[in-house]
Amino acid sequence: MAESNLQILLRRRPKGEPVPEDFEIAETPVPQPQPGEVLVRAQYLSLDPYMRGRMSDAKSYSAPVALGAVMEGQTAGEVVASTVEGFAPGDTVLGGFGWQRYSCVQPGRLFKIDPKEAPLSASLGVLGMPGLTAWVGLEDIGQPKAGETVVVSAASGAVGQVVGQIARIRGCKVIGIAGGREKCEFVTEVLGFDACIDHRGDLAAELDRHCPQGVDVYWENVGGAVQRAVFPRLNDHARMVMCGMIAEYNDVEPRPGPNLMAAVRKRLRIQGFIVSDNGWPRYPQFRQEMLGFMAAGRMAWREDVVEGLRNAPTAFIGLLKGSNFGKLVVKID
Amino acid sequence: MAESNLQILLRRRPKGEPVPEDFEIAETPVPQPQPGEVLVRAQYLSLDPYMRGRMSDAKSYSAPVALGAVMEGQTAGEVVASTVEGFAPGDTVLGGFGWQRYSCVQPGRLFKIDPKEAPLSASLGVLGMPGLTAWVGLEDIGQPKAGETVVVSAASGAVGQVVGQIARIRGCKVIGIAGGREKCEFVTEVLGFDACIDHRGDLAAELDRHCPQGVDVYWENVGGAVQRAVFPRLNDHARMVMCGMIAEYNDVEPRPGPNLMAAVRKRLRIQGFIVSDNGWPRYPQFRQEMLGFMAAGRMAWREDVVEGLRNAPTAFIGLLKGSNFGKLVVKID
Repeated sequence: MAESNLQILLRRRPKGEPVPEDFEIAETPVPQPQPGEVLVRAQYLSLDPYMRGRMSDAKSYSAPVALGAVMEGQTAGEVVASTVEGFAPGDTVLGGFGWQRYSCVQPGRLFKIDPKEAPLSASLGVLGMPGLTAWVGLEDIGQPKAGETVVVSAASGAVGQVVGQIARIRGCKVIGIAGGREKCEFVTEVLGFDACIDHRGDLAAELDRHCPQGVDVYWENVGGAVQRAVFPRLNDHARMVMCGMIAEYNDVEPRPGPNLMAAVRKRLRIQGFIVSDNGWPRYPQFRQEMLGFMAAGRMAWREDVVEGLRNAPTAFIGLLKGSNFGKLVVKID
Repeated sequence: MAESNLQILLRRRPKGEPVPEDFEIAETPVPQPQPGEVLVRAQYLSLDPYMRGRMSDAKSYSAPVALGAVMEGQTAGEVVASTVEGFAPGDTVLGGFGWQRYSCVQPGRLFKIDPKEAPLSASLGVLGMPGLTAWVGLEDIGQPKAGETVVVSAASGAVGQVVGQIARIRGCKVIGIAGGREKCEFVTEVLGFDACIDHRGDLAAELDRHCPQGVDVYWENVGGAVQRAVFPRLNDHARMVMCGMIAEYNDVEPRPGPNLMAAVRKRLRIQGFIVSDNGWPRYPQFRQEMLGFMAAGRMAWREDVVEGLRNAPTAFIGLLKGSNFGKLVVKID
């Protein structure tokens, strides 16, 4: 193989908004698999908001990426060499191989999939970590019941798309929140939400208009002004699924949150979760159910595909500002 | 009966801290039971923080007391006349008969108890609504596991006393927070908590000293500065049982709360509840378990008994400032 192993490293920890200089592009030799290892060439890399946390050394649920190390991330690719029984060149695999073209991995970190079931990149989105996140959070915390009103922030994003469609399948009225008219049209016309509110408009008035019965489940991807608008509209016994607060990830000082007396008065359940805690053992059940929804034409999705690994840093910086439209993936050249 | 029916009415809605002039003392004739009614003379009235909410017409989980109406409240008393089978003069009963000496009630709103099981006033505290609140909140939300650290605010109060003792019985390390040395000594020496922190001291440093492993369950009765000190010390997967925020009940404008990104990062569960939602059907199970703890000498309690119904308003105003020491009840003259 004359090809090199292209890698994106963390050069330094961002202060506030990341900039391209926080990353470093490296070219190294393609690694050789040792006994017990599989050499994988990644074809797609998933870019997700949680990666901002990994760039920081603030205490979090997971250790940060070390300075000079390859950025972490989920990938889908192909086995090119194997010393391990059960994995052969040409096999399609998923795993967390990071922002790089090649990696040598042990089979316990590989998940073999049938590439005929769905396009490969879908296994990083609707059928991947973001889809599983949506499914687990609704199952464990949101628990939407038919007839309830569900509000989903970042509705056109990787997680939001799936949350809203599952809630619709469960018989809920689903209102999305997204940035700009194009995204909102996609959310109603392609994903089939009942309505979608542009958060750049009069969010409070639009919430009142579309949620006259209040909000029973709020899926929180965003924080900031969107959280401030939705929180007072939560109904008694509402569930607030704390998945992320992307609007605040670049904050240097945390903003104040809502007064929690409402949690007593309205018996709110405000609960966070991380899909890696207990999600993956349920992946087969999730994947089967989602493939069923897809086969029945009840699960649409949109990807924002960036060509070339060298463009990953800029694409990721844009993700934190909402510049992507749909699940952001990088097609690795 | 020459005696009158002494009643405390809501004269006007308080602005901020209630004052005695917000209440009105009335003397009316003793009511006569109609067919299907029982005449009860109350012996004890329970005074509880939630009553501040009932004085206000802000939207809440329960309708406010109407102006000119008798203040709401739980009472324990004796049947003096009955037209209903199953209730006879001399029977001991519990019910929500309000801040008054006599009331005519229908049997569905009466709960007959055996006065030999425990002192009558205990059925308004450790065996009453506050005790049931503690039991239900731990059962449904706090779910303390042996070895975990549980922090209880307002630890010497009606609910806090029971929360901490149940958590100790479940094998937890229990740290109370109370106001002043006398209350703290009671919490450790009589109730048997592992430690008690005076919130007038250096709360943050004392929390660090007594909770070196962080906090797994925080029982929130108080809000304000206590909440601000405990919140950052919550562990991953901690539960915050939102029972009340008494330090903020007289606020005219709500204070900001904690930034909720911690709920994602630490997978917190922040959940409120109201015992009347689903607590009372479980009262028999609760009462049996509590009587067992009491018989085994594992459940202590302290009451602050105020003599005379006319003193109820002043006692209630003091309750909101923490002037009481133990479960506040009024002995009705």
